[in-house]
Amino acid sequence: MSAKDRQSIEAGESERRRIRNGELKGPTAGLAPGNVQANLVILPQALAHDFLRFAQANPKPCPVLAVSEPGDPRLPSLGDDLDIRTDLPRYRVWRKGELVDEPCDLKSVWREDLVSFALGCSFSFETALLEEGIELRHMTCGSNVPMYRTSIPCTPAGPFHGPLVVSMRPLRPEDAIRAIQITSRFPAVHGAPVHLGLPEMIGVRNLDKPDYGDAVPVRSDELPIFWACGVTPQAVIATVKPEFCVTHAPGSMLVTDLRNSKLAAL
Amino acid sequence: MSAKDRQSIEAGESERRRIRNGELKGPTAGLAPGNVQANLVILPQALAHDFLRFAQANPKPCPVLAVSEPGDPRLPSLGDDLDIRTDLPRYRVWRKGELVDEPCDLKSVWREDLVSFALGCSFSFETALLEEGIELRHMTCGSNVPMYRTSIPCTPAGPFHGPLVVSMRPLRPEDAIRAIQITSRFPAVHGAPVHLGLPEMIGVRNLDKPDYGDAVPVRSDELPIFWACGVTPQAVIATVKPEFCVTHAPGSMLVTDLRNSKLAAL
Repeated sequence: MSAKDRQSIEAGESERRRIRNGELKGPTAGLAPGNVQANLVILPQALAHDFLRFAQANPKPCPVLAVSEPGDPRLPSLGDDLDIRTDLPRYRVWRKGELVDEPCDLKSVWREDLVSFALGCSFSFETALLEEGIELRHMTCGSNVPMYRTSIPCTPAGPFHGPLVVSMRPLRPEDAIRAIQITSRFPAVHGAPVHLGLPEMIGVRNLDKPDYGDAVPVRSDELPIFWACGVTPQAVIATVKPEFCVTHAPGSMLVTDLRNSKLAAL
Repeated sequence: MSAKDRQSIEAGESERRRIRNGELKGPTAGLAPGNVQANLVILPQALAHDFLRFAQANPKPCPVLAVSEPGDPRLPSLGDDLDIRTDLPRYRVWRKGELVDEPCDLKSVWREDLVSFALGCSFSFETALLEEGIELRHMTCGSNVPMYRTSIPCTPAGPFHGPLVVSMRPLRPEDAIRAIQITSRFPAVHGAPVHLGLPEMIGVRNLDKPDYGDAVPVRSDELPIFWACGVTPQAVIATVKPEFCVTHAPGSMLVTDLRNSKLAAL
């Protein structure tokens, strides 16, 4: 293990410990810089296999970083001490598709049949873009990235089906080309864009009216660039209305011990 | 040396022999499929160093594959038997910027101070795009790729200066993303595009009026994608009006022994 690996592990463990102890309740953006943060989906075992098949068939919106054993709150490949019941600042608990609670831990709702999925998140590739000096408009605006339901269907699996949701970042053409090169290196965190420049082709009629997040200005010297978005599985699960489901609360991600650069394909 | 290397060498040598013997006078597109073809520039030694500096500073339009010794007609790294004086179907001889002849060999004009430059050509990356099933409109139309002088200046070196010339290929957005990934692997043959989508940003006002080549239709579900073009050094040399210069005639390239896949960075 390299010194850098040890640093990443210490940073991940330290932030999770603060979250677990209730010292940190806010959004996780900026915590353990350079470490992978993950979207969380927890489903009963009865649905887990179909969901994993769905993710496997739709790797761009649903890049799987780790899957737990049923009932096991650990995801050791993402952090030795990681306990999925306590290590996110805030969760969303869903019953039959209804949001019923936003607790700070899952101790009171944990069940022996729950399977946890950690899915790659755009934070990782956004870090790589920022390091290249590429401006991310929603960050400049201090808002959430705008997200849109597209006319592109995901590949269905069991009860899971629905449209691809995309996030949009406006970029100048030369930055768009560089961003495609950079994000292509990160297939485990949504990878290359799925579309650019002609939003109506993917069923996005009005950039000013995102289905999730906040609109951002697109300047006349910029093109809208669209990446597959981790909201896709959440939107798909919402239509299935499982009897029980947990997700991370928006912005409250799972901080892992992995370094983003470890996810780079090249 | 692998069997495949041997095949590439045999194909290159065989086509150059046919050209050298006058059996093949036409364009070289499609000869020795899979082998690298190159643009040719021959300059007096007095200008060679500045031109090489210009190419070094502008690698996207001027990717240097090989440079000869002064007066030496060989480029052994591109083919053992290669003789630059005889191995292209047709040349253009320029004196003080004027096209004075289009001979089939250079025997009568060869000088002991001439330096040959073989520059990467878009044939190589177009092969990679076609292999991926991406339509190239100018091929579908049976015409030359449209090329445009841009408002982007090349980095000058000595007397060499001038605008970047780009070639344009219309692609659907998903093909554009794939094409950026593919051509990024080929930095020695122009590499990734330099622009897409907003031609006026690079000083291209009318796609229907290319400065070189032929216009092609851009459909409503396509974006114009622009790559740095090997016509750039030719246009730049024309403004310098060297007392003597040779280039390949359009479409009559140098067929080498190198396989395109050998140029792939990844």
